[in-house]
Amino acid sequence: MNWNTRFSDAASRIADADAVIGILKLAEQPGIISLAGGLPDPRVFRIEETQEAMAEVLRDHGPEALNYSPNPGITELREFLATRMARIERIRCSPEEILVCSGGLEGIRHAFNALTNPGDPVLFEDPTYMVALQVCRELAGIPIGVSSDDAGMIPEALDDTASRLAREGRPPRVLYVGPSFQNPTGRTWSLKRRREVLEVAERHDLAVVEDHAYGELRYEGEWLPSLKSLAPERVIFVHTFSKIFGPGLRLGWVAADRNLIERLGLLKLGTDQCSSALTQRLALAYGKAGGLDAQVERAQDLYRRKRDAMIDALADFPCRTPWLRPDGGFFLWSEVDCDTEKLLLRSIERHGVAFVAGSCFFADPNSAVARVSIRLSYSYVAEDRIPEAIRRLGQALRETVGS
Amino acid sequence: MNWNTRFSDAASRIADADAVIGILKLAEQPGIISLAGGLPDPRVFRIEETQEAMAEVLRDHGPEALNYSPNPGITELREFLATRMARIERIRCSPEEILVCSGGLEGIRHAFNALTNPGDPVLFEDPTYMVALQVCRELAGIPIGVSSDDAGMIPEALDDTASRLAREGRPPRVLYVGPSFQNPTGRTWSLKRRREVLEVAERHDLAVVEDHAYGELRYEGEWLPSLKSLAPERVIFVHTFSKIFGPGLRLGWVAADRNLIERLGLLKLGTDQCSSALTQRLALAYGKAGGLDAQVERAQDLYRRKRDAMIDALADFPCRTPWLRPDGGFFLWSEVDCDTEKLLLRSIERHGVAFVAGSCFFADPNSAVARVSIRLSYSYVAEDRIPEAIRRLGQALRETVGS
Repeated sequence: MNWNTRFSDAASRIADADAVIGILKLAEQPGIISLAGGLPDPRVFRIEETQEAMAEVLRDHGPEALNYSPNPGITELREFLATRMARIERIRCSPEEILVCSGGLEGIRHAFNALTNPGDPVLFEDPTYMVALQVCRELAGIPIGVSSDDAGMIPEALDDTASRLAREGRPPRVLYVGPSFQNPTGRTWSLKRRREVLEVAERHDLAVVEDHAYGELRYEGEWLPSLKSLAPERVIFVHTFSKIFGPGLRLGWVAADRNLIERLGLLKLGTDQCSSALTQRLALAYGKAGGLDAQVERAQDLYRRKRDAMIDALADFPCRTPWLRPDGGFFLWSEVDCDTEKLLLRSIERHGVAFVAGSCFFADPNSAVARVSIRLSYSYVAEDRIPEAIRRLGQALRETVGS
Repeated sequence: MNWNTRFSDAASRIADADAVIGILKLAEQPGIISLAGGLPDPRVFRIEETQEAMAEVLRDHGPEALNYSPNPGITELREFLATRMARIERIRCSPEEILVCSGGLEGIRHAFNALTNPGDPVLFEDPTYMVALQVCRELAGIPIGVSSDDAGMIPEALDDTASRLAREGRPPRVLYVGPSFQNPTGRTWSLKRRREVLEVAERHDLAVVEDHAYGELRYEGEWLPSLKSLAPERVIFVHTFSKIFGPGLRLGWVAADRNLIERLGLLKLGTDQCSSALTQRLALAYGKAGGLDAQVERAQDLYRRKRDAMIDALADFPCRTPWLRPDGGFFLWSEVDCDTEKLLLRSIERHGVAFVAGSCFFADPNSAVARVSIRLSYSYVAEDRIPEAIRRLGQALRETVGS
């Protein structure tokens, strides 16, 4: 049987993800220094405290931890998250307004699926989180990029884009953004921009999906309020344990309107029914013992050092736009004087260094700026390898530009 | 903001799941004896051995267990599953033909999504696993029921249905079945039926999704080959750790053609990206220590006793069709002389006993047989409560029939 001829439209639409997966696999080959994947540095993990929390879970809650969890998540964990969000993000919500998901991405998926139909436009920052774009496309949504700069999404651009789409008879209903230490740019929106964009969102009645994945990894500058805290009704807040505990738990959560949360829960019945009771109980025990806060502190110190090491190494790097010095997160972003997909192949094949070419982060991957953009991740690479990685990358760039 | 007016078609299609969730919640109230949910009995869990396996994982693989897993699953686990399937199911497949999922249902979802477009018919046994029906509907597929009896799906009915759909210009591409200790009927297909149905599937070129969730819980009768072992190319085999370890791990797997597995992996990028590395490592360590086989043995003994207790208690129960005595699994199934949704309300409200009304298991929930069908689960209820549960249910039935 030839299965390749049997695939659905959705399966075809997702196929472009294959290229990125291929590159990430290449990047993992021995000898390659990878600045590609956005993985946490294992040194932020607190194995001993994790062991203690897990021992407690299996001792006190073994049978529940091995059985199904309630669909929206374990009540005690939702209560813990409500309290923690109030303390850290000044977000006020009740446990009924929280859905525990298997990673933040699952929450983003269900939000898109609950609020858009096939063919609907969905608004994204340009550039934006690659996998959110892929999910939108898989669901047959039409991603529309909105111009953004180092201070965040440009409110006038959002207004123009939403107005144009409305005039075309397809008014957008959903806006997806990452206002804090965004993947892929590391950008953080100013307070002014946060307020302005929310005003435009209000005017166009957009549901705003706020991805807060990196939000707690601020290692410089002043705390800024999340969109959710500024517009509690309008914003669907998506957060994850991946950067404050570990991706291996596959746990995140959504905070949103109670009716929406119920509907997202029904959609979750059709992905994994409920998230792991075992990892939920682990997150709860670890969190209650202070593990999350202690880990965030450790992560902030480590990633600040790694960012500085990479910024230093890039001092003489020939890029077209200056590298933004992010106040948090995992990523650096710039433009160079060549097609970065070509650069990537040369970098991997001849110089043993990998990154992610920018095109996959854009609603239109073939735009001029998309073709020359580049994302470097400093989160996972060993600190003492950073100078060598950048040296190799610089060499690959000079060769590609000259070729 | 009124979110209820913003929901997509997919969110509306999934809304009928809400009623079932509501009933399951009611069934969990204190004082109710529940024969509703298909949860494992916690007494099958081997907490001590789980603790040992988990301690080993965090000691030897802590940093990997807390980080992302490869998208298709940890290689060593896929190797273990290939070897175990060869031993237990006589299925020959390589690790590249296996995708680790977050529960079997996730695999079913991705198979439907990869192989059908909105509006396509999808063939199901009548009755079938409720959540598979819901997923099909959420994806805008059209579930079509195929008549089945106590020996399994009726090959002539499958042939007739597939031929009729083809004549209507919408030939079916996918058939979903549970040939072993099916949810909800407990039925197991005879070997003859397995072969005959596969022949019809071959004739109509159907991809066959075989749900093996309860397949290892055989506590009586002779081992039968899975459809996968009889037609390795055509069958997408879906299995889960939920009944051989615990649903709390949220782990299952798919064994299928390598190209299809790759595509399912891409679709998985858009649900949870990868399954939990922590629970995958736990499943591997527990499995390698012999935990799965030991647990299956314990489960077989326990569920056999509970089935017998329920069959005994039902000896004088006034049902329309005799209860099938299943050779494995969690469920009993029959028809009674009243609308079982009405019976359910009375049972919960006046008699403190719950079950699942049959309609949600049918492609057409309003058919005459759907309205009078009833599923009882003996998996979770305490053994010594079974006679009382059936006494209460009998009373509720007599009242409902007489009212």
